[in-house]
Amino acid sequence: MKKYSFKNDYSEGCHSNILEALIKSNLDQQNGYGYDDYSNEARELIKNKINDKSADIHFVSGGTQANLLVISSILRPHESVISAETGHIFTNETGAIEATGHKIHGIITADGKLKPEDIQSVLNAHTNKPHQLKQKLVYISNSTEIGTIYQKHELKELYKFCQSNDLYLFLDGARLGQALTSEINDLTLEGISNFTDVFYLGGTKNGALLGEAIVITNDKLKEDFGFHIKQKGAMLAKGKLLGIQFLELMKNDLYFDLAKHSNVLAMKIKLAFQKKGFQFLSETFTNQIFPILHNSQIEKLSENFDFYVWKKIDEEHSAIRLITSWATSDEVVENFVMEIEAL
Amino acid sequence: MKKYSFKNDYSEGCHSNILEALIKSNLDQQNGYGYDDYSNEARELIKNKINDKSADIHFVSGGTQANLLVISSILRPHESVISAETGHIFTNETGAIEATGHKIHGIITADGKLKPEDIQSVLNAHTNKPHQLKQKLVYISNSTEIGTIYQKHELKELYKFCQSNDLYLFLDGARLGQALTSEINDLTLEGISNFTDVFYLGGTKNGALLGEAIVITNDKLKEDFGFHIKQKGAMLAKGKLLGIQFLELMKNDLYFDLAKHSNVLAMKIKLAFQKKGFQFLSETFTNQIFPILHNSQIEKLSENFDFYVWKKIDEEHSAIRLITSWATSDEVVENFVMEIEAL
Amino acid sequence: MKKYSFKNDYSEGCHSNILEALIKSNLDQQNGYGYDDYSNEARELIKNKINDKSADIHFVSGGTQANLLVISSILRPHESVISAETGHIFTNETGAIEATGHKIHGIITADGKLKPEDIQSVLNAHTNKPHQLKQKLVYISNSTEIGTIYQKHELKELYKFCQSNDLYLFLDGARLGQALTSEINDLTLEGISNFTDVFYLGGTKNGALLGEAIVITNDKLKEDFGFHIKQKGAMLAKGKLLGIQFLELMKNDLYFDLAKHSNVLAMKIKLAFQKKGFQFLSETFTNQIFPILHNSQIEKLSENFDFYVWKKIDEEHSAIRLITSWATSDEVVENFVMEIEAL
Amino acid sequence: MKKYSFKNDYSEGCHSNILEALIKSNLDQQNGYGYDDYSNEARELIKNKINDKSADIHFVSGGTQANLLVISSILRPHESVISAETGHIFTNETGAIEATGHKIHGIITADGKLKPEDIQSVLNAHTNKPHQLKQKLVYISNSTEIGTIYQKHELKELYKFCQSNDLYLFLDGARLGQALTSEINDLTLEGISNFTDVFYLGGTKNGALLGEAIVITNDKLKEDFGFHIKQKGAMLAKGKLLGIQFLELMKNDLYFDLAKHSNVLAMKIKLAFQKKGFQFLSETFTNQIFPILHNSQIEKLSENFDFYVWKKIDEEHSAIRLITSWATSDEVVENFVMEIEAL
Repeated sequence: MKKYSFKNDYSEGCHSNILEALIKSNLDQQNGYGYDDYSNEARELIKNKINDKSADIHFVSGGTQANLLVISSILRPHESVISAETGHIFTNETGAIEATGHKIHGIITADGKLKPEDIQSVLNAHTNKPHQLKQKLVYISNSTEIGTIYQKHELKELYKFCQSNDLYLFLDGARLGQALTSEINDLTLEGISNFTDVFYLGGTKNGALLGEAIVITNDKLKEDFGFHIKQKGAMLAKGKLLGIQFLELMKNDLYFDLAKHSNVLAMKIKLAFQKKGFQFLSETFTNQIFPILHNSQIEKLSENFDFYVWKKIDEEHSAIRLITSWATSDEVVENFVMEIEAL
Repeated sequence: MKKYSFKNDYSEGCHSNILEALIKSNLDQQNGYGYDDYSNEARELIKNKINDKSADIHFVSGGTQANLLVISSILRPHESVISAETGHIFTNETGAIEATGHKIHGIITADGKLKPEDIQSVLNAHTNKPHQLKQKLVYISNSTEIGTIYQKHELKELYKFCQSNDLYLFLDGARLGQALTSEINDLTLEGISNFTDVFYLGGTKNGALLGEAIVITNDKLKEDFGFHIKQKGAMLAKGKLLGIQFLELMKNDLYFDLAKHSNVLAMKIKLAFQKKGFQFLSETFTNQIFPILHNSQIEKLSENFDFYVWKKIDEEHSAIRLITSWATSDEVVENFVMEIEAL
Repeated sequence: MKKYSFKNDYSEGCHSNILEALIKSNLDQQNGYGYDDYSNEARELIKNKINDKSADIHFVSGGTQANLLVISSILRPHESVISAETGHIFTNETGAIEATGHKIHGIITADGKLKPEDIQSVLNAHTNKPHQLKQKLVYISNSTEIGTIYQKHELKELYKFCQSNDLYLFLDGARLGQALTSEINDLTLEGISNFTDVFYLGGTKNGALLGEAIVITNDKLKEDFGFHIKQKGAMLAKGKLLGIQFLELMKNDLYFDLAKHSNVLAMKIKLAFQKKGFQFLSETFTNQIFPILHNSQIEKLSENFDFYVWKKIDEEHSAIRLITSWATSDEVVENFVMEIEAL
Repeated sequence: MKKYSFKNDYSEGCHSNILEALIKSNLDQQNGYGYDDYSNEARELIKNKINDKSADIHFVSGGTQANLLVISSILRPHESVISAETGHIFTNETGAIEATGHKIHGIITADGKLKPEDIQSVLNAHTNKPHQLKQKLVYISNSTEIGTIYQKHELKELYKFCQSNDLYLFLDGARLGQALTSEINDLTLEGISNFTDVFYLGGTKNGALLGEAIVITNDKLKEDFGFHIKQKGAMLAKGKLLGIQFLELMKNDLYFDLAKHSNVLAMKIKLAFQKKGFQFLSETFTNQIFPILHNSQIEKLSENFDFYVWKKIDEEHSAIRLITSWATSDEVVENFVMEIEAL
């Protein structure tokens, strides 16, 4: 029997509602390239949730694709993007952004989040124009790559700072569902939409087979986006595959239910570690946790479960990364908690 | 009730075997990014069919993506690609190849196919090095964008010419199934593999929800291909979605059965037009046909069926494009044939 | 003794006024990167000549550099440029434009010049958005690569067409001096400026050691151009080298005197061929001529002169290309004319 | 009267030998694009000095151009370059390298120099292939951007490390003359050539009007370099302008005499500051020095001399940057020293 894997939140397929919708719609002839009825209906649901009828919404396959599409569509050749060094685009996308011609200025942060003063420091270091690049875009993730989330006042301040410095703000929402259903969250999807110029809702890590919904709310960034999707090889002939999935996820807030499920299970595991007095690499309230264990404890837990050893702390201890998902069952978590308690 | 559409071969979803496999595998935890068991098994089946155990096989989402990945991974900045002007990369992919930095030399052809003398003419026109580009890659499609196919001796000669001129040969197989099951075809998948350096098997237009299988047989082109997939945003987290589909398509030659089905139905429609004395824009033996009709006849057929008016011939006549697919039913075709007979 | 070469107009150094100015200014400390007094003064002279005080003027090293800078600074990733197939950017710049990510649509012309109907035909062939590129820029050369020139009404109509089709018009003036001093010319530098969005004045082929003056008159294209110059490696630390040269060329219309000199000598040679009844590949009125000779005549002329055999006409005849320059002496031309007469 | 400027080493024109050679060669007809006799002769002199007859040598206009040409010609799309954060390519070339598609990994250093352990740390942080880039090239400068130089054992160790890690080593020699004539230098031009794969000799900052000589010694990097020069707009029609200059600079070691001159003068100024007890931002032995002065002293020196205030140290002190050049006279330095002594 295979060990249960907490390695990531994309090990399984998709939620059963989606499978059923795929079956039901299978022989329904539709326009290609995202002009199908399902995609249109899904767009309407998202527009309603963000209360912005004029938003432009595009469905694409994955996060790296969404990132490179958005960034390369916005920037002129001499413009650059600012990101935390933990940002997914900085070291985990094989130079996808640079491959489109743009530098990423990396910022070292404690918690994976950017603050106005971080951005200001980059601007201050690039005043020798035109020998230095023109910064034009700020990239953030929510939840971040290390599991933290933005509070409403943080996002709002960052957005105001960007606006007054002629910078666009782009939010990578590969795990936006998890952020918005975290127990410490005070933002809504409408808030995300209000305090950014463009963002996306991740489906791949929250119940879909594949798919991210890019939402462009700043009018200046809407023009001709479809050309970029096609040019970068991101336009699916059977675009309805993405539309059907987002339609199911958006209906009755399934998207948020699934995210919340993954968060709740992660918090149960976190609590179990806390009760036993374990420390964590960073304090997280979403579906990723990073407890620090003794090497022998890691070995013990590895007998029945798979996970990444994330960072060596000292000769005898390491932080591990545990990720729960929409597909993780209560039962699996109960078994795992028992193993923690037995450590 | 919606009209039946002969507009393209990607209006529906996928073959039922694939749907069943998706259901069955749904909660099976697998490695991401193409390292899953299903993808590996599908790779083995393809390797068997081409009788090349050392081939490198990568699954990606669509044709434009496959084209830009293959071409940009091969060429150095000063190298260019040669294509027919009807080639999909030349005008129908929003400059995807040029966006990666490479010129496409377009060749005007009668039948959408390239011959050694076509390539030679481009080489002859570019001898002023280094002021002119270095041609390094030849791009062909089989079946072509206008429905024609390569005969074995044609492909073999082209490949030999490429080899003796230090050019790579890349075959776009978005509709390779249709080519290989055409009634006039004399090539096998192994032949395709033997007489090219790299090619792909199209799934999107032949029974899959999405997916193309890139097959690299020339050792020089294999190194580091995975980096390119990731960099261009083409690496699916849930790579098993592609593996599962190609596994089903390759099993028991379902892939070829579906393609043949689409061809046979197209030939039935072709025959009906021929019997009535209609001419065609080009003679095709795959799943695309281009009959030339009087405008009033086009109007009549449009009452119950959807299709593209492809090219104006004169004030009173146009060629239309009709495409059948794995999902087209015998019944629909019978109804359409009756309408043709009634014209 | 070396044969005299009519191969091109960049075989020598520079006009003596420039040498003297270089000597005189040599130890004068100046700001780098084009912010020096000489460049500023040269800019003023050009602005006066085009009667546009708000023009943006940038000096760069050569034609390919000017072309790639202008085009890549204007176009967004999904936009393309239209050019004659004889256009220098189309096959003679090693894919410089495509290397910045943009397709060039090539148009076959009889005389190297573009007409509104040529552009319209490209627009007509690219209506399937977003699967096809968005044309945004038209590139022309004056004089053209085959020695022809635009008449005022031609340029005016082309510009109007571009304006009504949301296209920018860019004029490559590597040999603009020769065009404007041709005996059949009816355009002025101010006219060039009025009927284009951006153009450049070539120095390299008209008396300078190196240098082209890019003149941007459309406000929309001015922003941030300096960043592009630096990014593409085109910003000289000692920018005054370019400023000094254009200052000398613009003073007292030396630029036009030199160009006229080269034209007049070419026309003398042309006349000599005409008197002897020779035909020409194309009728030109600038500093390039293309007489068609018998192979034995080519051999004879080659004894004392160097030139390119340009195009084979039949087994016994070829067109040769003869180029005169600011540096060609009357004496050399007289000797050559005598040889023609003796053929 | 203008103040004397110590702002940089490219404020003047060129050494008088070069001016004389330009005059003498002015009407000598030569092949274009670097195929002229002067360039060939200059190449021979350089080959002799590095004792490598098979080296490939190309003359280009400036440092940014040389950097982007070398780096983009070497790297495949998924490969990256490692540099100190003070490296010129990292923040002072308007993203020129990223514009060709490649990421630069920046390393924070104390002295602007890279050590094997710096490179190793980048390699260690990028083991998650293919989600992370493949490092392929190390970029260093000698002298560095902050005036320091490499000792022979340092360069040798770095080169050995690169070789054993499948990395190329590229040395930016914009101020290589100054490095090799520094009083603490123990490297020769042949040593530079032996312990790198490719480097360049800067002319612009050492007596030429413009020009850098790229020297490729690793056979794998030689192929087709000319194509890249043309494609990036870096190929001068009158390539002899560069050849003539390097011929003069290489003859009788003028290049090294000029560099030494600039170093000696800088050291005189350094000594004057040291005698007065001033501290320096970094200890340099080339033509750049960074003394730390009180604001009032800066103001005093500014009355007769121009220079950059480089870095604020505290409210009352800043480091200034002083650069001497081949053109700086002993007299100017004597006057400046007197002003220092009077502080």
